[in-house]
Amino acid sequence: MILTVTLNAALDVTYRVGELRPHQTHRVTEVTERPGGKGVNVAAVLHAIREPAVATGLAGGATGDAIRAGLAEREIPEALVPIAAPSRRTVTVVDGTDATGFWEPGPPVTGAEWDAFLVRYQGLLRVCRAVALSGSLPLGLPDDAYPRLVGLAVAAGVPSVVDTAGPALRDAVAAGPTVVKPNLDELAGATGMPVGTADEVRAAAEALRAAGAGAVVVSRGPDGLLASTPDGVLTAAPPAPIAGNPTGAGDAAVAALARGLAYQLPWSRRLAEAVGLSAAAVAAPAAGEIVPAVYDRLRREVPVQAWEQPDREGGTA
Amino acid sequence: MILTVTLNAALDVTYRVGELRPHQTHRVTEVTERPGGKGVNVAAVLHAIREPAVATGLAGGATGDAIRAGLAEREIPEALVPIAAPSRRTVTVVDGTDATGFWEPGPPVTGAEWDAFLVRYQGLLRVCRAVALSGSLPLGLPDDAYPRLVGLAVAAGVPSVVDTAGPALRDAVAAGPTVVKPNLDELAGATGMPVGTADEVRAAAEALRAAGAGAVVVSRGPDGLLASTPDGVLTAAPPAPIAGNPTGAGDAAVAALARGLAYQLPWSRRLAEAVGLSAAAVAAPAAGEIVPAVYDRLRREVPVQAWEQPDREGGTA
Repeated sequence: MILTVTLNAALDVTYRVGELRPHQTHRVTEVTERPGGKGVNVAAVLHAIREPAVATGLAGGATGDAIRAGLAEREIPEALVPIAAPSRRTVTVVDGTDATGFWEPGPPVTGAEWDAFLVRYQGLLRVCRAVALSGSLPLGLPDDAYPRLVGLAVAAGVPSVVDTAGPALRDAVAAGPTVVKPNLDELAGATGMPVGTADEVRAAAEALRAAGAGAVVVSRGPDGLLASTPDGVLTAAPPAPIAGNPTGAGDAAVAALARGLAYQLPWSRRLAEAVGLSAAAVAAPAAGEIVPAVYDRLRREVPVQAWEQPDREGGTA
Repeated sequence: MILTVTLNAALDVTYRVGELRPHQTHRVTEVTERPGGKGVNVAAVLHAIREPAVATGLAGGATGDAIRAGLAEREIPEALVPIAAPSRRTVTVVDGTDATGFWEPGPPVTGAEWDAFLVRYQGLLRVCRAVALSGSLPLGLPDDAYPRLVGLAVAAGVPSVVDTAGPALRDAVAAGPTVVKPNLDELAGATGMPVGTADEVRAAAEALRAAGAGAVVVSRGPDGLLASTPDGVLTAAPPAPIAGNPTGAGDAAVAALARGLAYQLPWSRRLAEAVGLSAAAVAAPAAGEIVPAVYDRLRREVPVQAWEQPDREGGTA
């Protein structure tokens, strides 16, 4: 079983409207609600490829109840720890052109609730083969929340993937996670280094790895993945661009990386799976969903390449 | 006691953001939730002027629970009838410039739920002095829902104020409510007549009154009220413009009109109270709230004028 952790679980609400016009009133023609938050999406993607996963984290209030109900409806096992304050909603307004998001702040979490979570988490670590720690922190959690969770995984001998941003990412790296998966903005934020070229991305990824992560896998949108690993620096990208919705592509990559840890797949295989599952998420309409046929095809076709040093006279590999 | 009916009660959610930009993601800095829907706002305004009121209507799901909890927190008595489907939310995004609204569609209501409401409503009619019927209809209610409620009020000898739009307004008028309160758009929609000038508004109001309403009070925004009543055509407006938020001004006018019916105030007094209470709602930040000092001052100062026939040679009174 793969454990996914979502400390700031969300109820994702999507509104369809004709055309978004600022400072007007819109009649919403369609409302959909689904459980969300990055780790919840990771569990949903694993579930979609029939990989046993359990979603833990924190959830409270009527929104927390709706998150639990949505997971139950999708047959995704959850071990969410209750909190008193209501979980956040994310509202996405979709018009004919694109999506406009409104992210509520996370709920406040008490010290007692955090302690209860730590007990539950340590119990779950005993029965899982890998853990994915994803997303932002709600209010009230200690600054060392992510390093603490990584440290407990290390102590339990459970490999971990961390997908977060800002100071939480920097702090988590120092605790020695097996893999971290920043996107370009997160990599730049954590290292303070430029990420404009492939060579700069490689240098920043290697710096973040040197700071404590076992491997650093950078998601670069349509350009695919660049990974600094114990097997060297590798890149992988889909053979052709995938049309669709990039929301949730990073969560799908994390799902594949966690699965790669659980089965101790070689790094080249992990990256091909991660690109294939990301592409399958892009092809699906909502975060946490995939198009299985895209995954089945691409996981076999994605080329994974060892990094070539750029020609110092100009140009990159 | 004044009864207010909100068949499509709502949970009003307000998000504060920096600046609304279509097709971007926004971090919401502040979330507020309050019970809403026009009739709920009418009850809240009556409560604010210490006039006993009970809010009935239909409410379901987690949003219905939140509506009930919000009313309890504000000490506003409610007799909402439960339905299985969740009540709608209205999401209002407020940036530095203005408000952008997203109105969810109403929940489906079953025949059995509507029957249960009718039983409750008839019981409440026995103990109230006036009833305000406000807002849109949720899905699944019969087309004759408003005429049915008006007819039951007539049969019970309870005077009624109706504030709705479209076919529901036309149908309600035919059932003989004591007062209807359209705004200019609703008046034009119900009569098919032009409402560009004061004389046109008077003519349309008189036509709607002839169709069955005891009186027609037209809210004209900053221009105040124009009423076709058994005491003649009257107009009333604040002595000076009121700065603020016009959302909820119509509900405050309905509250004053319902109170005027309950105490059998003369029409000139009803209009002065309605303009004063509307202005007090404009001066307050949210629908259902008022600034009492504005009401106390204006209710004494609002001039109410009998209509002068326009000079047929040109110009209006």
